[in-house]
Amino acid sequence: METSDLILHLAGPGAQPFPDLAAALRVAGNARAELPGVRLEVVVQGPVVAQLAGDAHNAAEASALAAEDGVTITACRNSLRSAGIDEASLAAGVAVVPAAVAHIARRQFNGAAYIRI
Amino acid sequence: METSDLILHLAGPGAQPFPDLAAALRVAGNARAELPGVRLEVVVQGPVVAQLAGDAHNAAEASALAAEDGVTITACRNSLRSAGIDEASLAAGVAVVPAAVAHIARRQFNGAAYIRI
Amino acid sequence: METSDLILHLAGPGAQPFPDLAAALRVAGNARAELPGVRLEVVVQGPVVAQLAGDAHNAAEASALAAEDGVTITACRNSLRSAGIDEASLAAGVAVVPAAVAHIARRQFNGAAYIRI
Repeated sequence: METSDLILHLAGPGAQPFPDLAAALRVAGNARAELPGVRLEVVVQGPVVAQLAGDAHNAAEASALAAEDGVTITACRNSLRSAGIDEASLAAGVAVVPAAVAHIARRQFNGAAYIRI
Repeated sequence: METSDLILHLAGPGAQPFPDLAAALRVAGNARAELPGVRLEVVVQGPVVAQLAGDAHNAAEASALAAEDGVTITACRNSLRSAGIDEASLAAGVAVVPAAVAHIARRQFNGAAYIRI
Repeated sequence: METSDLILHLAGPGAQPFPDLAAALRVAGNARAELPGVRLEVVVQGPVVAQLAGDAHNAAEASALAAEDGVTITACRNSLRSAGIDEASLAAGVAVVPAAVAHIARRQFNGAAYIRI
């Protein structure tokens, strides 16, 4: 079977009632269970990237999910810069791309599905 | 002509100023008129699923739209459970899937277009 | 190389903390730089279309971006009508489509990638 890819796009302030990282991790964990064989990538953009810092509330959960086979958690470098967050301080296992939108577009051009969470 | 599929994804708290079910039904109704031959599915996720209950404000409009050829209105079972809503109490004609994200991903893998409303 | 298309979908009230036109123009400008050869279209729907008026705060930036090769900024006519905005008063270079959702769906059926901003 051909492997399929799914992008889950989390963007925004990241405060309730907006979707935040905890909600995104829950959604991603459920999708992981429901879609065996699908490569899953959570792309985080905007101020909510602050929740990927190694000392943030959900850092352990983010690292645990990122450590699973076929799962990537990706932060936008532009957003990290705007939020004043050093890449070196991110939770273990979090990947970084230069720009979330360009990354997501390229992934879709290569066949990935896309859901905004 | 090959039939095309369009997913309209409504997710969120469902209170103003967020998009709510009334807005989604308006958007779906317009898309229905503009895209003859396109199969349309409104997938509802998160607390806003409460607006699909049979006694909710827009239940009659939801049922009327779901009764049209080529239109499906789908609630996420995980969201219904979180909101404490019994599936049996949903507005007539509303379909249920186990998990919205997995469902939308599979539909896209089969060629559906996706718009977050 | 085949040209690729990317839709950036801005919808909503358009007031902070929601994404507004300024944020969308920033995102689009970055994507323009990162994705040479990709045709970019920003589709604006909902009350935020008011920010495309010729006398609005970001009108000059919107016109400058729309004037670039391979970039289109598109307003939804249904949204303009709801907002009471005359098409003739839009910032120079802004295109209009009858309905944003139908337009975006058709673009995706023709292979465009989609990101909700």
